[in-house]
Amino acid sequence: MAGSTFGSHFSITTWGESHGKAIGVVVDGCPAGLSLCESDIQSYLDRRKPGSSRYATQRQEDDEVQILSGVFEGRTTGTPISLLIFNTSQRSADYTQIASCYRPGHADYPYDEKYGFRDYRGGGRSSGRETIGRVAAGAIAAKILSELGIELCAYTKSIGPVSIDMARFEREAILETPTGMPDRKASLLAEEYLSSCMASQDSCGGVIECCITGVFAGIGEPVFDKLDARLAAAVMSIGAVKAVEIGDGTAVSAAKGSENNDAFFADQEGIHKKTNHSGGILGGLSDGSPIVIRAHVKPTPSIYQEQETVSRSHENCRIQIKGRHDPIIVPRAVVVVECMAALALLDLTLENMSARLDRIVSFYENLK
Amino acid sequence: MAGSTFGSHFSITTWGESHGKAIGVVVDGCPAGLSLCESDIQSYLDRRKPGSSRYATQRQEDDEVQILSGVFEGRTTGTPISLLIFNTSQRSADYTQIASCYRPGHADYPYDEKYGFRDYRGGGRSSGRETIGRVAAGAIAAKILSELGIELCAYTKSIGPVSIDMARFEREAILETPTGMPDRKASLLAEEYLSSCMASQDSCGGVIECCITGVFAGIGEPVFDKLDARLAAAVMSIGAVKAVEIGDGTAVSAAKGSENNDAFFADQEGIHKKTNHSGGILGGLSDGSPIVIRAHVKPTPSIYQEQETVSRSHENCRIQIKGRHDPIIVPRAVVVVECMAALALLDLTLENMSARLDRIVSFYENLK
Amino acid sequence: MAGSTFGSHFSITTWGESHGKAIGVVVDGCPAGLSLCESDIQSYLDRRKPGSSRYATQRQEDDEVQILSGVFEGRTTGTPISLLIFNTSQRSADYTQIASCYRPGHADYPYDEKYGFRDYRGGGRSSGRETIGRVAAGAIAAKILSELGIELCAYTKSIGPVSIDMARFEREAILETPTGMPDRKASLLAEEYLSSCMASQDSCGGVIECCITGVFAGIGEPVFDKLDARLAAAVMSIGAVKAVEIGDGTAVSAAKGSENNDAFFADQEGIHKKTNHSGGILGGLSDGSPIVIRAHVKPTPSIYQEQETVSRSHENCRIQIKGRHDPIIVPRAVVVVECMAALALLDLTLENMSARLDRIVSFYENLK
Amino acid sequence: MAGSTFGSHFSITTWGESHGKAIGVVVDGCPAGLSLCESDIQSYLDRRKPGSSRYATQRQEDDEVQILSGVFEGRTTGTPISLLIFNTSQRSADYTQIASCYRPGHADYPYDEKYGFRDYRGGGRSSGRETIGRVAAGAIAAKILSELGIELCAYTKSIGPVSIDMARFEREAILETPTGMPDRKASLLAEEYLSSCMASQDSCGGVIECCITGVFAGIGEPVFDKLDARLAAAVMSIGAVKAVEIGDGTAVSAAKGSENNDAFFADQEGIHKKTNHSGGILGGLSDGSPIVIRAHVKPTPSIYQEQETVSRSHENCRIQIKGRHDPIIVPRAVVVVECMAALALLDLTLENMSARLDRIVSFYENLK
Repeated sequence: MAGSTFGSHFSITTWGESHGKAIGVVVDGCPAGLSLCESDIQSYLDRRKPGSSRYATQRQEDDEVQILSGVFEGRTTGTPISLLIFNTSQRSADYTQIASCYRPGHADYPYDEKYGFRDYRGGGRSSGRETIGRVAAGAIAAKILSELGIELCAYTKSIGPVSIDMARFEREAILETPTGMPDRKASLLAEEYLSSCMASQDSCGGVIECCITGVFAGIGEPVFDKLDARLAAAVMSIGAVKAVEIGDGTAVSAAKGSENNDAFFADQEGIHKKTNHSGGILGGLSDGSPIVIRAHVKPTPSIYQEQETVSRSHENCRIQIKGRHDPIIVPRAVVVVECMAALALLDLTLENMSARLDRIVSFYENLK
Repeated sequence: MAGSTFGSHFSITTWGESHGKAIGVVVDGCPAGLSLCESDIQSYLDRRKPGSSRYATQRQEDDEVQILSGVFEGRTTGTPISLLIFNTSQRSADYTQIASCYRPGHADYPYDEKYGFRDYRGGGRSSGRETIGRVAAGAIAAKILSELGIELCAYTKSIGPVSIDMARFEREAILETPTGMPDRKASLLAEEYLSSCMASQDSCGGVIECCITGVFAGIGEPVFDKLDARLAAAVMSIGAVKAVEIGDGTAVSAAKGSENNDAFFADQEGIHKKTNHSGGILGGLSDGSPIVIRAHVKPTPSIYQEQETVSRSHENCRIQIKGRHDPIIVPRAVVVVECMAALALLDLTLENMSARLDRIVSFYENLK
Repeated sequence: MAGSTFGSHFSITTWGESHGKAIGVVVDGCPAGLSLCESDIQSYLDRRKPGSSRYATQRQEDDEVQILSGVFEGRTTGTPISLLIFNTSQRSADYTQIASCYRPGHADYPYDEKYGFRDYRGGGRSSGRETIGRVAAGAIAAKILSELGIELCAYTKSIGPVSIDMARFEREAILETPTGMPDRKASLLAEEYLSSCMASQDSCGGVIECCITGVFAGIGEPVFDKLDARLAAAVMSIGAVKAVEIGDGTAVSAAKGSENNDAFFADQEGIHKKTNHSGGILGGLSDGSPIVIRAHVKPTPSIYQEQETVSRSHENCRIQIKGRHDPIIVPRAVVVVECMAALALLDLTLENMSARLDRIVSFYENLK
Repeated sequence: MAGSTFGSHFSITTWGESHGKAIGVVVDGCPAGLSLCESDIQSYLDRRKPGSSRYATQRQEDDEVQILSGVFEGRTTGTPISLLIFNTSQRSADYTQIASCYRPGHADYPYDEKYGFRDYRGGGRSSGRETIGRVAAGAIAAKILSELGIELCAYTKSIGPVSIDMARFEREAILETPTGMPDRKASLLAEEYLSSCMASQDSCGGVIECCITGVFAGIGEPVFDKLDARLAAAVMSIGAVKAVEIGDGTAVSAAKGSENNDAFFADQEGIHKKTNHSGGILGGLSDGSPIVIRAHVKPTPSIYQEQETVSRSHENCRIQIKGRHDPIIVPRAVVVVECMAALALLDLTLENMSARLDRIVSFYENLK
């Protein structure tokens, strides 16, 4: 595979460049019978739109999705769902400098090495706009998971030095701040930090956490397609993510077994864990506790400061990147992390249906 | 896929349980013409053997590999290579307790939920012995990469609170300490820490770092099969790994763009970077700098302390795990991380051969 | 995979229904640097259009292709190529009867069983219009193969009882008859036969043969992905194809070994075969001779005669299919067979690049 | 994939050469809970053994299968099942001539072109012994299908000019003749024909038909992974098969629509077809009628007659093949066709479980 396809059961293929005519995704393997219309998807796309925040690119796109196939009379038919979003706000003039120079922190140089040339307009395929297809498909995956009682919730956990602890909050609170932090005080601090970064023509990074509740125990395949391995691939495949943690994550390396093990206990409702250091995954399989993933996002590589670099003709030079770009990627990437997690989880949930002979037999007996 | 296969070009399928008759791997897609014999593989397997260290399980296995197919007159034929290692040291008596109780931190409970029952002897498929197949296949991948000038080197970066900074060291130094730390002083400190853990019937975790040199720029596929995404999946699929970092990893979330961007410069030999915060990967493609990956490994969940848990029949109970088990997984997992990285990288390196039409045309013209 | 993707290196995903908004395909894995514009693809699509022939549906579609991504400054970039064709001539009124009744010979009944309902307009996803995506992608595959010196040529070998022998003819001759038979006399006879079928409100089938020249020896993978197995899957996946033959095909079952074996001989140019009973494939690998495939196509199931069938509510009933439909599928399917063969062959040709270590090493050494 | 893996849900990977140490298969994705022991598999392997028939190779192998993993206390665990059969009757001395000469009708020449050299002992990987892995895995697939009420039955339909019509016969009758023809008179005629072939140092081909009953309507994926496409690939991937037919097969090209369409009718038990020209598949999905596949098998290419060929060093020469070989492949290939059909069908049957949202929801609700 050339790598634009994700998932083997609920399988998505994204396409499109930042400044091409359009961008989109084909979803193959969506079960038939899901109620689906454009607004189900649009509400997810709107979460990654620049919006009116001053911390996001000034590029204004409607990013209006069209369903071109796979839905009939308001329900999915089981055949591929093609989703298309036209690009409407390309200002190619902004990007001519990139054609001849490699932007530090960007994929320009390795693209040229791999392909011999590249669509340099706005980053082409390596642009953050590529995630539109992921979000559009992820919205469908999340809707299916919701029918199974599984809910995903991603939020901004930190921006630069400002961090919040995981705690109870309303899901809606995430959308109420421009940072994606469901804590107004912390969000204001983060905004101050962002303003100082912008003042110094700089950018910054942050952390996104995604929690998933309602997952059945036993989802995941035990060796290479462990649930955590698939989630890690899903989240690390988002541009700018440089580290992925599950549960206690990096902290486990300093912990002791007696601290890190989660004790089991049983009550009438079933088996539970007293703690959740594992982040809901044991041996690559879901353990019934909430799944917790964290993505560490690097600072936007496009900054207004002048930087040292080289030209396509291998000459040392300096570059000052113009055009519009976000001082931070995190707030808009929150929904992308959530969607990639949904895609990975749904795929393994469907796969899990053929894990046991007795369940397969009774599945088909019910059809007779 | 049920998840025991990794890679699409150099594709491996592992099989086997801790206490079954044997354990093994089938490598499909190994190029023809590689000189290969058992000792090439054995030397890698020996690196994950318990050996004589007191920090490893007392289980003594020879883990002697046999090549059953795919090699003729000392060279690979291009057909599947079947590698088999008989299990010789099963003491099933040690494990009867696990049959009825779920060990905290282990996969016992979700396995039962997924499959309805499990091979409880020594963890069955979820045992660390499953990695034997990965290491055997990884030895072949590493040998091929070496022919292309690519070298991998993994080592123990930290154990509990004892950590070493990446610095120049001889590769051989890694094998000279029982911890896999190429720094004798640090290793002695780590051993002290390990001893104290053992004294308190506890276990501990650590960090493994893998560096890869000699990688061409442009390896990786730009969207879902990014080089970092594939490496993350590869490494996260190793049991006990709870976080994966590339380059600066988690530190990027607190950095500014001006700090995190690596400036390019050119000299007669080509294009280089002044720093390597990116860990050798930009936009999912290798950038020609050394690739740096870190895996955070949790403490061995099997500890001698009594723990709270539940039985298969959902009764609360206590468990005291007997038998032999390592107080730390890290030293033996070093070679596993190295092998998984080799497998992921080789796969994408082969895939990369069809990235450009001009190279495909000249490849086939050379055959005429 | 839910089955709308074909190929693992040059990988295509088709989408769209007969009467949806549009129909299309995403090509992932197209090598960078191929000169490509809409007209390269349009010329293939035009070959499957109804055109002005009286033996084809009266539905008039322009089937005008748009390239939405993956091409920059006239060349492919290595990223996904999204091709879109709007449906412009839907007359849904014609198809209301199908909503409640299962057409004999069509997929209506099993679709309902599989998905619970179906897009009944014009056959929905099971319509022949689904092949538009295959042809659009196949045009690109054929262009790449052509750069490697490989040419494909499919033609109508028989229609009902009228059959022509494989013989030397100009490729252009195929396009000069309304039947796709490169023999005017035979074509006229076939047209007479078709007219008689139409007069009796009936339809008929035929045979399409595809010859491929210029293939290197050794293409194909020796076990499940044999070149003939992949070609058979590719061609059998076209609706209405009920048999696939390679070389002598069904005749081999009555032949003797001494007749069926092709003797080898060598001259200055290399190794050749005196005959080509094998159809260019030995042991699943190309043998350097022309590859010969034949597809047997069933009569169009839509006929104007009244037929017995059942309704969705399981009542016996009769159906008389209205609307526009071809009395024969063969002439329009010729280019579909050619394109599916191109897709299967290109995929294995790219895969073959990693068959030998020495060639991999020299490939990468050339890049230094 | 390098092509030794078949199936994406019930996924098998075969390995081994004719004269290597052993031959085997790894089955990944077998559902947990299937009762399985060696004899379940052995009975299938015995059907492809040479046995005592004079129409089969004199090579005597026990082909005794060992289960090395994936089964615990008599039931499959859901983890990979590794099956191993040691090669015990290699007489390598017989095959030295093949090392330097290309046998007509065999894969020797394209293997050398592809890989640069080959394991020439007994055909190496291209030997019919490769099918042992398919049969061993197919035995498991057939057992699972049987639990779902699906039965497969393959038999010899023709040998050279001697052919039988499909008719009612006892399944056991297939095993009672040395030809695999469930008709004693026809079998005796076929044996006479075989004797005459042998007398003239020649070989012959034949036809194998496989019928599958009990298949639910709606199995298969509608585009590239049509049930017939997957079956065609499965059967065409068997060495020596040169044509595959579904239902009426090649006859459809001469039929009219009014003849070829199968009328539906309904009774209390459901929907049926009055005829079965479709061979149980419509639009790539099973239609509930028996599935009928035919494989046309070429004459054994190894014949005792002297043949013209070329040497590895490209010199024209003559070859007289010594050693033991079957005058016909068909009787031993019957079980191989049956097993490949089982593997293809099971894979799509498992895939079908995620076709409908309502069924997925109720599947998971039942687990709560």
